[in-house]
Amino acid sequence: MKQADFHNAIRILTGDAPPRVWSLIVTVFGDLAQGSGDAISGPVLSDILAPLGVRPETMRVALHRLRADGWIVTEKRGRQALHRLTPSGRTQSLAASELIYAQTRPADEAWHMLVFAPAHSAQEQSRAAVLGEEHYVPLAPGVYLGNGAANQNIDGALVLTGALGSVPIWLRDVLISPAQLSAIKDLIATLDLLATDIPGFDTTDQLQIASLRALIVHRWRKLVLRLPVVPDVLFGENWEGRLCRARVGAALEALPRPDLSTL
Amino acid sequence: MKQADFHNAIRILTGDAPPRVWSLIVTVFGDLAQGSGDAISGPVLSDILAPLGVRPETMRVALHRLRADGWIVTEKRGRQALHRLTPSGRTQSLAASELIYAQTRPADEAWHMLVFAPAHSAQEQSRAAVLGEEHYVPLAPGVYLGNGAANQNIDGALVLTGALGSVPIWLRDVLISPAQLSAIKDLIATLDLLATDIPGFDTTDQLQIASLRALIVHRWRKLVLRLPVVPDVLFGENWEGRLCRARVGAALEALPRPDLSTL
Repeated sequence: MKQADFHNAIRILTGDAPPRVWSLIVTVFGDLAQGSGDAISGPVLSDILAPLGVRPETMRVALHRLRADGWIVTEKRGRQALHRLTPSGRTQSLAASELIYAQTRPADEAWHMLVFAPAHSAQEQSRAAVLGEEHYVPLAPGVYLGNGAANQNIDGALVLTGALGSVPIWLRDVLISPAQLSAIKDLIATLDLLATDIPGFDTTDQLQIASLRALIVHRWRKLVLRLPVVPDVLFGENWEGRLCRARVGAALEALPRPDLSTL
Repeated sequence: MKQADFHNAIRILTGDAPPRVWSLIVTVFGDLAQGSGDAISGPVLSDILAPLGVRPETMRVALHRLRADGWIVTEKRGRQALHRLTPSGRTQSLAASELIYAQTRPADEAWHMLVFAPAHSAQEQSRAAVLGEEHYVPLAPGVYLGNGAANQNIDGALVLTGALGSVPIWLRDVLISPAQLSAIKDLIATLDLLATDIPGFDTTDQLQIASLRALIVHRWRKLVLRLPVVPDVLFGENWEGRLCRARVGAALEALPRPDLSTL
């Protein structure tokens, strides 16, 4: 790939909002060095990030913060620094990867609804927070939809377990904001542009691939990790998130994950 | 039955709130003369109502109103007036009887919940009114529980159809007011008193029976027709309404419906 095309692809993928460096580094490790024992050397990390506009000093500061937060450990080997995920960083990274790299979000055939007694709004908010962690969808105050069979021990709730009919269009607006939807459409358009008008995926340079993957995964990661973790079917027939996930999958297939040893 | 016992029973059944006469007459016709062609003569109606404290003039005014409202028609046969339900009065009376004389309110095994998009409260109120007519239970704004399978054509609603778990205690408070519950407990206590301490059901006099039935049915009718028409199971384990219905049933069995020809 010509340098001009490569930089053009990076410019298009970055858009108006250059990613935060510490967060971008988390993405790079999650994409390339999530395996037990995987490490990325200082120079390689710098080679991946430099084309994205990350200066060495900024990278050093970000790595310092990631070490302080327990995400990264750095080990000196001779004159070279080797960075790797900590065990807790790896655990968090693995959990996020399940959402980032998933091909689909299928649904269990069974669904259930929980209905609680009318409550004060503070009480309801704290219940919504707890049930949100368990991936329930809040449909109305005190009313929650869950996929799968209900846990039998739900204190004080009326529980209906069964099959879901067709999903009305308004449910999407409960699940995501207009800003989220528009960011998803943006990423679809960006990837379409790179795949067709710009030869953005047309490279075999492993470092270029690593840089491009970092940007693509990073943009998708910021979107997908903020979506409610619920089956696709709840978003209706023409769910842009499903399309975006397919486009991201195709892009990552066109830019196959480099082996760390080749970088 | 001694006159004193009879009047005592009437006093206890009437309590502090003597029934409205026109409404009491509707009860009497629903209880004794709902059959096609059934009629009650003026003197017999007067004999049934007089012990309840209804004066002839009050009865005449009430009958006049019931004729004007299309409930009753009166026909002269010789010097005697014969009163009967109009076809529309009979239709309404039959519909009410299904609720008044029912032994149980069983539930279909299937239930469904409808969830509508968040709406303005005026919009939601009018939806609640429409769905209330179809015996849906409003659980939260835009959320309704129905017994049986869902009608497939419910525009804009998320529909979950399935089985209901155990019913939480708070649901009763959604279904009835404390005043309704206390009126039901009152009637249970009254019927218990008549059955045990006062020989209130101990008569074979057909006119006395007609008067006592009128009061019992009337009190129950005022309660049961204001309850939401939903299966008993939604009111929880120790539903006083179920007990009250059983007590009313036992009382009416102890005072078997007189044949009009014997009055």
